[in-house]
Amino acid sequence: MPELRKDPIVDRWVIIAKNRAQRPQELDSALHTRAPGPCPFCEGNERATTPEVLAFREPGSAIDAAGWRVRVVPNKFPALTTEGGSEHRGEGLYQSLPGFGAHEVIIESPRHLVSTSELTHDGLCEVIAAYRDRLLALKADRRLVHAMVFKNAGAAAGASIEHVHSQLIALPVTPTAVQEELDAALAFHQQRRCCIFCDLVERERASGERMVLDLPGFVAICPFASRFPFETWIVPTAHQSHFESITHAAICELALALREAIRRIETALNRPAYNYVIHTAPFDTSDLGHYHWHIEVAPRLTKIAGFEWGAGYYINPAPPEEAAAFLRSAEVDFTTPQNVPIKEAR
Amino acid sequence: MPELRKDPIVDRWVIIAKNRAQRPQELDSALHTRAPGPCPFCEGNERATTPEVLAFREPGSAIDAAGWRVRVVPNKFPALTTEGGSEHRGEGLYQSLPGFGAHEVIIESPRHLVSTSELTHDGLCEVIAAYRDRLLALKADRRLVHAMVFKNAGAAAGASIEHVHSQLIALPVTPTAVQEELDAALAFHQQRRCCIFCDLVERERASGERMVLDLPGFVAICPFASRFPFETWIVPTAHQSHFESITHAAICELALALREAIRRIETALNRPAYNYVIHTAPFDTSDLGHYHWHIEVAPRLTKIAGFEWGAGYYINPAPPEEAAAFLRSAEVDFTTPQNVPIKEAR
Repeated sequence: MPELRKDPIVDRWVIIAKNRAQRPQELDSALHTRAPGPCPFCEGNERATTPEVLAFREPGSAIDAAGWRVRVVPNKFPALTTEGGSEHRGEGLYQSLPGFGAHEVIIESPRHLVSTSELTHDGLCEVIAAYRDRLLALKADRRLVHAMVFKNAGAAAGASIEHVHSQLIALPVTPTAVQEELDAALAFHQQRRCCIFCDLVERERASGERMVLDLPGFVAICPFASRFPFETWIVPTAHQSHFESITHAAICELALALREAIRRIETALNRPAYNYVIHTAPFDTSDLGHYHWHIEVAPRLTKIAGFEWGAGYYINPAPPEEAAAFLRSAEVDFTTPQNVPIKEAR
Repeated sequence: MPELRKDPIVDRWVIIAKNRAQRPQELDSALHTRAPGPCPFCEGNERATTPEVLAFREPGSAIDAAGWRVRVVPNKFPALTTEGGSEHRGEGLYQSLPGFGAHEVIIESPRHLVSTSELTHDGLCEVIAAYRDRLLALKADRRLVHAMVFKNAGAAAGASIEHVHSQLIALPVTPTAVQEELDAALAFHQQRRCCIFCDLVERERASGERMVLDLPGFVAICPFASRFPFETWIVPTAHQSHFESITHAAICELALALREAIRRIETALNRPAYNYVIHTAPFDTSDLGHYHWHIEVAPRLTKIAGFEWGAGYYINPAPPEEAAAFLRSAEVDFTTPQNVPIKEAR
């Protein structure tokens, strides 16, 4: 029988309906999304992008030229701009703000790789360090309140470019999804005097049935009210509200956990398109006892259709306990990618 | 410059970013979504579905046989079942309910049409009457609190079957998206003593810039904080909280407005995939002064990607004022489809 599950943190119900998985459906899940023409993100094609705002480079290499390992550039088609103020406009019922903010692209490798799992360990550590450095830089602009790092990998996940990359959007307002977590986590903390995410990690470790990974510093779990099949959260085991406070040691641990989680998803599900997002506390708060940053990873195996959009509820055909067991048993190749070209630059 | 707009009803911001429309992107927007084999929804193939719960039939025709005009059947792969109780289960942080509810399919024509715009006027009136009749029937079950009617047309909109149809899901809980509207509308009503939707209709009629249609009984508008390009809401001009209270006369008016809105979207945008949902008040309330049912229509031209999912915010490259002007100017063929087969039954 199907089950309605309430998310333990926010006020959101999910319908776990296993038999729906038998429904004939076209799975639009390819990770590859070739566009015509040369790849603007490959080393050597730096002039195809906007000028870089950050790059980790070989000594002596010139900015906006070859010789980088990770490179951050403003999005060429930004949803927001860093020009103009942030004054509020209101007219009757209608409120608006100028679209002030930052929309940046983190190019994760100079080579034409397509997934996080193909990065070397050092490469992924530098990607995470770039996330942190950009958040710290944007936080210095007092007009910005929050930045969300996200990855779209594969056309079904919304990517228009195949080359391994992620993005961030910094805004003068806190996104709804983060604000709902903040509000619910604060209410829990006021009642129980502990962080709901810390409590969750402890419960999941105790039961084990939704655990995917339990590594030094980080766990990966399929959450109780997973919205998507094989949704996986990566949560630091030590309490920390702001992602940008991550230490160098924790970056190395996160790289191991993130890559293994994605590699398990790719092995078990034949390299699906996927998204991940980092949920972190707003810039205008300091260390919060009630909030705990984390990464939410979702392979894109199902379509968001009328019901999900109209109701704000999700129908998930894969019970998270079964998804976690399947991911735990995936036979993953644990060798770390070496620095050899998987594909040639285009 | 892009603009951040707050929805006038719920607490949701949208980024209106026109230049994003220039971004190279694969538009996955075909309305046709052929599956192999005979179509289970065509007349004559009634045995391919579950037994009907409602049908408008020719006199003398047998149930679950040919001779129907609109037919409602339980979904063959239901997200919910009508067996079992609705007792709440709680275990620590984790709450769940049995997946009690109804998941039905409204087959809108015996012929193999693919869009609402291809139905005859009488045919669409009967589809809307079927929505109403099923809501009234489900409302009689006191365990159910809400039913949402929705349509997925085209694979990009989540449809797995091409034949023109819609669905409904009835639940023992009110969906988040409706609850948020109810809460916000109640707060507005307490402060201003009027319905926010009635106020919106009046403002939009006065300004005209986001109006698509102003017909007897119904308006169609592109909402101020549209989440999707060419998002269009169809709102009754007379206050009414519960869709199932719709009169026969209003059904005829709604059929005209809904078909013309969809036909304008199809003409302007070359027949995209689309969704629509009916937002209506919960079963366990009676006439509410603060809430106003309406239909939200969204062509699926953009993908819901990592940012939208992770933030709960949307990036819309089409300002609603421009979308409305474009839809108003679409040269629509106003002849009503006659009862001739557009495609043969499969």
